[in-house]
Amino acid sequence: MAFEDPSLKEWRQQAVKELRGRSLDEITWQTPEGIDIKPVYSADDLAELEHLNTLPGFPPYLRGPRATMYAGRPWTLRQYAGFSTAEESNRFYRDNLKSGQTGLSVAFDLPTHRGYDSDHPRVIGDVGKAGVAIDSVEDVKILFDSIPLDKISVSMTMNGAVLPVLAMFIVAGEEQGVSQEALSGTLQNDILKEFMVRNTYIYPPEPSMRIVADIIQHTSNHMPRFNPISISGYHMQEAGATCVQELAYTIADGIEYVRAALSTGMDVDQFAPRLSFFFCIGMNLFMEIAKLRAARFLWADLMKTHFSPKKPTSLMLRTHCQTSGVSLTSQSPYNNIIRTTIEALAAVLGGTQSLHTNSFDEALALPSEFSAQIARNTQLILREESGLSKVVDPLAGSYYIESLTGSMIREAKNLIDEVEAMGGMTRAVEAGIPKQRIEASAAKRQARFDSGEDVIIGVNQFISDSDDDVELLEVDNQAVRESQISRLTNVRESRNEKACQSALSQLKRCAESGEWGLLQQSILAARARATVGEITDAVRSVFGQHRAVPQTISGVYSNAISSDEDVSAIRQRVERFIESHHRRPRALIAKVGQDGHDRGAKVIATAYADFGFEVDIGALFQTPAEVVRQAVDNDVHLVGISTQAGGHKTLVPQIVDGLKSEGAENVVVICGGVVPPDDVRTLESKGVSAVYGPGTRILDTIPQVLEFIETKMASA
Amino acid sequence: MAFEDPSLKEWRQQAVKELRGRSLDEITWQTPEGIDIKPVYSADDLAELEHLNTLPGFPPYLRGPRATMYAGRPWTLRQYAGFSTAEESNRFYRDNLKSGQTGLSVAFDLPTHRGYDSDHPRVIGDVGKAGVAIDSVEDVKILFDSIPLDKISVSMTMNGAVLPVLAMFIVAGEEQGVSQEALSGTLQNDILKEFMVRNTYIYPPEPSMRIVADIIQHTSNHMPRFNPISISGYHMQEAGATCVQELAYTIADGIEYVRAALSTGMDVDQFAPRLSFFFCIGMNLFMEIAKLRAARFLWADLMKTHFSPKKPTSLMLRTHCQTSGVSLTSQSPYNNIIRTTIEALAAVLGGTQSLHTNSFDEALALPSEFSAQIARNTQLILREESGLSKVVDPLAGSYYIESLTGSMIREAKNLIDEVEAMGGMTRAVEAGIPKQRIEASAAKRQARFDSGEDVIIGVNQFISDSDDDVELLEVDNQAVRESQISRLTNVRESRNEKACQSALSQLKRCAESGEWGLLQQSILAARARATVGEITDAVRSVFGQHRAVPQTISGVYSNAISSDEDVSAIRQRVERFIESHHRRPRALIAKVGQDGHDRGAKVIATAYADFGFEVDIGALFQTPAEVVRQAVDNDVHLVGISTQAGGHKTLVPQIVDGLKSEGAENVVVICGGVVPPDDVRTLESKGVSAVYGPGTRILDTIPQVLEFIETKMASA
Repeated sequence: MAFEDPSLKEWRQQAVKELRGRSLDEITWQTPEGIDIKPVYSADDLAELEHLNTLPGFPPYLRGPRATMYAGRPWTLRQYAGFSTAEESNRFYRDNLKSGQTGLSVAFDLPTHRGYDSDHPRVIGDVGKAGVAIDSVEDVKILFDSIPLDKISVSMTMNGAVLPVLAMFIVAGEEQGVSQEALSGTLQNDILKEFMVRNTYIYPPEPSMRIVADIIQHTSNHMPRFNPISISGYHMQEAGATCVQELAYTIADGIEYVRAALSTGMDVDQFAPRLSFFFCIGMNLFMEIAKLRAARFLWADLMKTHFSPKKPTSLMLRTHCQTSGVSLTSQSPYNNIIRTTIEALAAVLGGTQSLHTNSFDEALALPSEFSAQIARNTQLILREESGLSKVVDPLAGSYYIESLTGSMIREAKNLIDEVEAMGGMTRAVEAGIPKQRIEASAAKRQARFDSGEDVIIGVNQFISDSDDDVELLEVDNQAVRESQISRLTNVRESRNEKACQSALSQLKRCAESGEWGLLQQSILAARARATVGEITDAVRSVFGQHRAVPQTISGVYSNAISSDEDVSAIRQRVERFIESHHRRPRALIAKVGQDGHDRGAKVIATAYADFGFEVDIGALFQTPAEVVRQAVDNDVHLVGISTQAGGHKTLVPQIVDGLKSEGAENVVVICGGVVPPDDVRTLESKGVSAVYGPGTRILDTIPQVLEFIETKMASA
Repeated sequence: MAFEDPSLKEWRQQAVKELRGRSLDEITWQTPEGIDIKPVYSADDLAELEHLNTLPGFPPYLRGPRATMYAGRPWTLRQYAGFSTAEESNRFYRDNLKSGQTGLSVAFDLPTHRGYDSDHPRVIGDVGKAGVAIDSVEDVKILFDSIPLDKISVSMTMNGAVLPVLAMFIVAGEEQGVSQEALSGTLQNDILKEFMVRNTYIYPPEPSMRIVADIIQHTSNHMPRFNPISISGYHMQEAGATCVQELAYTIADGIEYVRAALSTGMDVDQFAPRLSFFFCIGMNLFMEIAKLRAARFLWADLMKTHFSPKKPTSLMLRTHCQTSGVSLTSQSPYNNIIRTTIEALAAVLGGTQSLHTNSFDEALALPSEFSAQIARNTQLILREESGLSKVVDPLAGSYYIESLTGSMIREAKNLIDEVEAMGGMTRAVEAGIPKQRIEASAAKRQARFDSGEDVIIGVNQFISDSDDDVELLEVDNQAVRESQISRLTNVRESRNEKACQSALSQLKRCAESGEWGLLQQSILAARARATVGEITDAVRSVFGQHRAVPQTISGVYSNAISSDEDVSAIRQRVERFIESHHRRPRALIAKVGQDGHDRGAKVIATAYADFGFEVDIGALFQTPAEVVRQAVDNDVHLVGISTQAGGHKTLVPQIVDGLKSEGAENVVVICGGVVPPDDVRTLESKGVSAVYGPGTRILDTIPQVLEFIETKMASA
């Protein structure tokens, strides 16, 4: 029986009736990306779109890089993991491979990222904490013991110390009997985004780009199954970027890497098919799906426009995805299983080639065996039980998804054009523009959360009375460090010292000469048992060390806060403080150790400054002694330590003690970031006034810290 | 930059290349519904579809019953719950309403469903187990204490004892000061599907349909905010129906109810807008989305064709959904959080009006407070954090979804036509055709699982070594029964006995007369404190009790088993038994107590018979003594008790003891179904040979039970 087709005008009339006084505008959603999402989409929304008649497996690959996608072969289940020693991580990897994982992804500890050996005095709190400690080939061999490197692909999240780490991977393969031609996997090797958000750089931007190009050239010539770079938006979204920013800056980074690789004299088709990508998948389901589809289109489009490659695969964007870490909450952590499922689904519907699903306890600590299993099962259940793998790009044609894909392409294109107008991404990064944009988005996101506009279940709505009991993994940092130092000593004693030093000198000469071959020389050094620290030092002696100047933005947070009631009460509270003490409250927001995740620190600095504090920001990678010095010199009331990587238990008590021995015991110390509940108690017992976990409303902390400060003053 | 659009022919060539020898047919998925799902869909697939240009809020409502859907108002978060006493359930409801739930849904215990008071000797094991025990208005008043019935809508899953339960709800409202005109909610009242799958019927089909019509008439006249029926496919899918069967039989049931209601003399527009539906959402994500869209189209189409209503809302299908219980596993129960998230997402993308999400421990026991919270949070996170609520019918236009929606409409229409050709659903049910079709699907589903074609993570693939620790809720059945009996005694002692008996006589006369007004008379009886059992008995004395004849199907399971290796080994094992003992192994598959869920029992009976057992099926609702009698009379080797509702701890030991006192201690007793781990140990200690939980491979049990039988024989 036929029905009359209603018009959109009739729909609007009906909608207005249902809304009983609310306007249609109220149900149009303005996303953080600045895209207006209407309540209903229809065929009319497809009229202007140019990307519709594509098919998977063909440029521009919008519907997927392969024609058969998961119907032919499922995505790779690749969990990022690593902690403590190589032995421990190896055992964990082998268990995971037995339990359904299909590829490996190594997490390195922060000293390794930054090119320090485990015995370096700057890295005492960080060894083995947020990843596995690697000092020499011997560690890498243990890491992959009984894992056939010609069969299992290995992804390595490494950007700073890429030369020693890739070199050691190649030598470890060689000594396992697998030549570099047969190694498959991916090196992250995306230094541009490190300058923007993650900060595990070593050298300044320009020589860093030379290393990237060197590695691309080497792998193109010798490692046909290896992706020399994973151009990563992940950490941008984690640092607060909108999906459009993540998309645009990642694609712009990619274009910049292509230019760098072309500078080695290669043809674009020699290396472009092996460039790979890495995106974050947050909670905005349809936006994330559209983002991955738009990314493939944009990459194909820009590659074709700029470089006219001949191979279609040079236009093909292949990507790994990871569910969002910042979307996880430490409150009611089992809720994170739900979140990760939704995000994993978005990644799969968007057509990712491989996927990491976060463990539900990662807002508290490193994954336990149990939580790691649930994370894997999330992917296995999606793959095997939900029918998701059967159809390629199943949402293609949807009025909403296609329209959103079009919007993402358009908005990201505008941002990319802006970067291009500045002369490309290296220039834009040097000028600090993308970083500022992302930090502004982060401050706005925090403000939306703090004012209740963004709801997070169990955190700012429907808060549970009871704490869930979760068994957490703890790494005995001291023991790891001692065991690493003992192996380091062994390596140094048993190697042919002359050969080793000679290899290091050759590497240094290569760096000085401006010739290609940095990776090749690093392989020779690694084979001669030079350590991560030694190889890095050799290169650093030529290229120098990059030091970032901390900058803050202002007004973004307070402008975006929409609930007025609290805001004026807090402003009054700060005013009262100023009146009583004849100066503004002054805070030093510091990071210690090798952890470069500074989103939290930046957002807090911005928010506190917006509410009347004087705020100093510490440099990255400070030692506890350096923090104490800066606090005393600036006569601050408050030191806020932001910690994401587990070094706090060692480092923060040193700051408290340091302040005391400088006679500054009145300075209030607080912590923020990922801190397991047991550590909270430990830190509090050592003199830390409060520990604020993920999901804390910044507004709430301001009156609290003022209380702490005044209480200490009164008792002095 | 423009790209050439490839043709589907080019796509096929590329796909074949990727498949390296596998054929394209191998990646076409034939679903259990018999629908062929291709690996890729494109605009070509929309060409033949007639349902595309619709908008939400307008007939045929394919894109949603309301124009603004969740953008205007989110779906109702309605969790089905109830256990133990009215006091306990009331406390649970009030907690849930505080924690984000927006409507109530009452689970009644099986004695209430079947119209027995808690002191009836047949129901000793069942009181308060799978739901709350209700005997009189006094219980209902306690159940809704401090819950304003003019504000909170109440759904009641009741199909057998609908007259006393709805009557008591009305009287409880009245005595809370809320007139029936102001009560909102839904009564399930769908008796047809009870005869097909769930078996909580009381009277035969024809008088049962009269009660349904009586209630529809009453609510149309007096309860404008109340849905008198929830036409339910849920239990069909749970019993093994495919999505097409669930869809078709549910719509066909609905048409039959409309006819029944018309027989009261009402106009279709008087009642049709308040008919509501209830579907199950299983793990096949896109199929479930398409099912809900197809259901709305089919209902509008058939209502218009058959009954030509004048109000558009008479064509509007509104539905509640619940995630699938049988998709949950007792192994690695935390995986169920992932499954329920996927299913909830499907329900929301399909456009449900309200939703129940299962708790992750429901394959083990009733939900605990913790698991109930996670279940609620699943909906809250989808609603608040994922952007899902912002756009109506977001997948509209998708080549795949629209094509699948079209297939569902077409396939379901064929089944509905078949039912219509038999003279409608009452006739089809009497002939047992839908029941047989569903049981065949259930047997095929089990065979797909048993042969590994259907994968369930943690059950037949990637099985975890360690048991997860889950705290389960246990109901003290004895205590509940005692407290109910004491309140019953009170009610009977304090009521005006003469008025009560007179009201019951009037009800009986109404039943005899064939007049409408059964609900009205039940209200008078409930007001006079007649009990659920007394009201039911009065009606039963006129209408009689329905007794089903158990039937089995054969050959379906063994034909669908695709792995040959095991199968022939098991056949040989059974042959060996027959040779040794000169007769076939004989099994009685029985249900005890008031639990009517017989999918498990039927599937096992079919499979065992297919593998050479002689199988007797016990009648539903047997007492332990009746099971013992049948076992002894038929000289069986094995009694298999299927239990889904928690009565096993009381009832099964009575069977073991009964067999012993009949000198039949050699008969092996096994259990299957939902049995918490602690109960497994208890049952085994009382002489049960094995307890098989959900997710057991039936094939594996056959050699095991033969061992049990022969061991017992040898020791005799």
